[in-house]
Amino acid sequence: MSYPLGLLAVHRAFREGTLSPADYLATCIQRADEVEPWLKAFCHRLPADRLAGGEGPLAGIPIGVKDIIATAGIPTTNGSRVYAGHVPDHDAPIVTRIKQLGGIVFGKTVSTEFAWRSPGPTVNPHNPQHTPGGSSSGSAAAVAAGIVPMALGTQTVGSIVRPAAYCGVVGFKPSFGAIVRDGVHPLAQSLDHVGFLTRSVEDAAFAFGLLADGADAAAAAQAVEGDVLPAASSLRLGVVRPPIWDRVSAEQNQAFETALEKLRRAGASVEPLALPDRYWQGFEAAEIILAAEAAAIFDALVTQYPELTSPQLKELVAAGNAISAPRYIWSRQLQESLQQELPRHLSGLDGILTAPAPGEAPEGLTYTGDASFCALWTMLGVPALTMPIARSARGLPLGLQVIGGFGEDARLLRTARVVEAQLTN
Amino acid sequence: MSYPLGLLAVHRAFREGTLSPADYLATCIQRADEVEPWLKAFCHRLPADRLAGGEGPLAGIPIGVKDIIATAGIPTTNGSRVYAGHVPDHDAPIVTRIKQLGGIVFGKTVSTEFAWRSPGPTVNPHNPQHTPGGSSSGSAAAVAAGIVPMALGTQTVGSIVRPAAYCGVVGFKPSFGAIVRDGVHPLAQSLDHVGFLTRSVEDAAFAFGLLADGADAAAAAQAVEGDVLPAASSLRLGVVRPPIWDRVSAEQNQAFETALEKLRRAGASVEPLALPDRYWQGFEAAEIILAAEAAAIFDALVTQYPELTSPQLKELVAAGNAISAPRYIWSRQLQESLQQELPRHLSGLDGILTAPAPGEAPEGLTYTGDASFCALWTMLGVPALTMPIARSARGLPLGLQVIGGFGEDARLLRTARVVEAQLTN
Repeated sequence: MSYPLGLLAVHRAFREGTLSPADYLATCIQRADEVEPWLKAFCHRLPADRLAGGEGPLAGIPIGVKDIIATAGIPTTNGSRVYAGHVPDHDAPIVTRIKQLGGIVFGKTVSTEFAWRSPGPTVNPHNPQHTPGGSSSGSAAAVAAGIVPMALGTQTVGSIVRPAAYCGVVGFKPSFGAIVRDGVHPLAQSLDHVGFLTRSVEDAAFAFGLLADGADAAAAAQAVEGDVLPAASSLRLGVVRPPIWDRVSAEQNQAFETALEKLRRAGASVEPLALPDRYWQGFEAAEIILAAEAAAIFDALVTQYPELTSPQLKELVAAGNAISAPRYIWSRQLQESLQQELPRHLSGLDGILTAPAPGEAPEGLTYTGDASFCALWTMLGVPALTMPIARSARGLPLGLQVIGGFGEDARLLRTARVVEAQLTN
Repeated sequence: MSYPLGLLAVHRAFREGTLSPADYLATCIQRADEVEPWLKAFCHRLPADRLAGGEGPLAGIPIGVKDIIATAGIPTTNGSRVYAGHVPDHDAPIVTRIKQLGGIVFGKTVSTEFAWRSPGPTVNPHNPQHTPGGSSSGSAAAVAAGIVPMALGTQTVGSIVRPAAYCGVVGFKPSFGAIVRDGVHPLAQSLDHVGFLTRSVEDAAFAFGLLADGADAAAAAQAVEGDVLPAASSLRLGVVRPPIWDRVSAEQNQAFETALEKLRRAGASVEPLALPDRYWQGFEAAEIILAAEAAAIFDALVTQYPELTSPQLKELVAAGNAISAPRYIWSRQLQESLQQELPRHLSGLDGILTAPAPGEAPEGLTYTGDASFCALWTMLGVPALTMPIARSARGLPLGLQVIGGFGEDARLLRTARVVEAQLTN
């Protein structure tokens, strides 16, 4: 599999005149034409004559937009048959921002139905018998297959980090609310995040500087390029192996241990971090919050369109309707309490290292994989990034997840860049 | 019934040296000794030797503190037999603030059980056969009977405005969150407000300037005393008669119409304001929010102490446990949506006029009265004030409720001062 230029490399090549935007776009279109017949990362591609960008730091750069994100004049199906043929009038603000930065909406990437569990047609670019993960299936596959250097995703449990890990790209879920989510179909308001997938951590840092709410676009490129990163030997990293670590495959565990060892050899402090048991009870709270909020959103829809909605969505609504209001309130209070307490546990750490998934992408296309290794960090609203660190015996990617403190996205991205440099050297 | 000096009058008399703090405090103690045997406004009074204040704008001023508000070293029963003998270690921040301003905690005023419906022993100071209202029963009675010039209260549905109206004093529920509520026993987090009761609107404005979060204590007295109020003829007032107006007694309706007529004669614009029907559906949403959040708080308590908790509290918990999580979520979303939309309806208005209660305090001591005329404004989180405007044939007070926009407490208080001046002239 070829990996064409990433986001920053393209940006630099345009600036230095070694690549023309037209040539680059032609390459991306050609790549899509080659792989899309079997990859099916996009549910809608724009014709070449509509692929016009503007001026700015993303000028000439084609970007995949997950299909639960509204795009004016471009079909937005939310991964649902209920929305077949739906064309919004307005762009979601994050799409408006991409356009203002000069970026090109290349197409809509396949989402599972409403970003829940019923998968779309996308396959894993490394092996079409395996799931790409979900719900940001098409975004992960499109970036991994080298069609676009960046794609937008969303994460409510593990919908950016898991597919990114399965497809072997970088997936970044910023802090809760860091990227504005108006115009993004909700799944669960207290858990929904907008993020993106890129080919490197450096690219993710560049994109975050451009896309985060209140970020200074003009300064973003300079910040990444001119940044003096901390020395690996100064890093203090906490290692979290959740109680469900027995689900981690031998290969994933080996890749994880090898990564820790490399970082230790580079002089980083890499020590186990024990979170209190109540953090692991938080997993149940996240499931309650998700089901209750999703039921409030989708109950009328599954009732009105029983033929057009999946068993998975109906099960989620039924589960949510069966939750009592006080139980939901307790879960939300536990969420807030764990969020408030977390900085104490992260004190003095540059980041947490953990697994993004139990292992390689599972075989089969009906199940998008186990999101449990992402759920806690999503519930806590903290920035979470996965990067590819190894391959399984079947040649499928294995990742490493790096977590930071709430609102400390920039710091986490710097930590992750140092980690990436150590692991790829 | 005698009405000793109000908050600002005492403050001025101290400043001018026409009254000594010791003499004033002695008057308050004497008044309490006279009436408390039958009034029962206080569940705990401090001995005279513990009634020491400090320096500041509230120096020498005794204040009643509702018994669901934590006071260090002073019993705080939350109106519940479960908390009999409970003495907190810490003051609630609002109590700390009162002490920092020089104020004296005179005693703890009777609250209904956990500020819900099971009444305490307090009677209406105007007729001991009638309820003082609730849940801030003791605070309303203590101010009305002239024991203290101010008392703290809380309101989740109508627990400041209703007892204030029934007892013939001014009750002010500021904007949601305007007075910090840490250390106050919760009843329903999305609805609980801290406020206070005084003898005049001017006193309420003075107190708000001192007690609101972020208020500038030094400027508060000056602001009230030096304030040039708008002319009555400049006021634009909206009149809201909710769909339940048929519950309003003939006397209350007559007092209300007379007040409107006086304001019109003073040149104010006094026109009906029609709120959309969904505002009145908001009443059901408020009930759902209250029951669900209360059940989350009290479920374990009523289970653990079946003998020490009231049927009213048990009913509330049972009602809350029967509410589904999605129904609670819809109600919270309706609350937020009505809050966001309200400024459009209030545009150009200096305030809304409505009834604080259906009429005089009902006869009997087992039922604290109908809070329905307060519920919407509490759910909206907007500042609400009641002032006495007339007496019923039985000599019981009748009030007028004035409502402002969220966060516009100071403006509402200025409007209410102009209204008060017109109605008492």
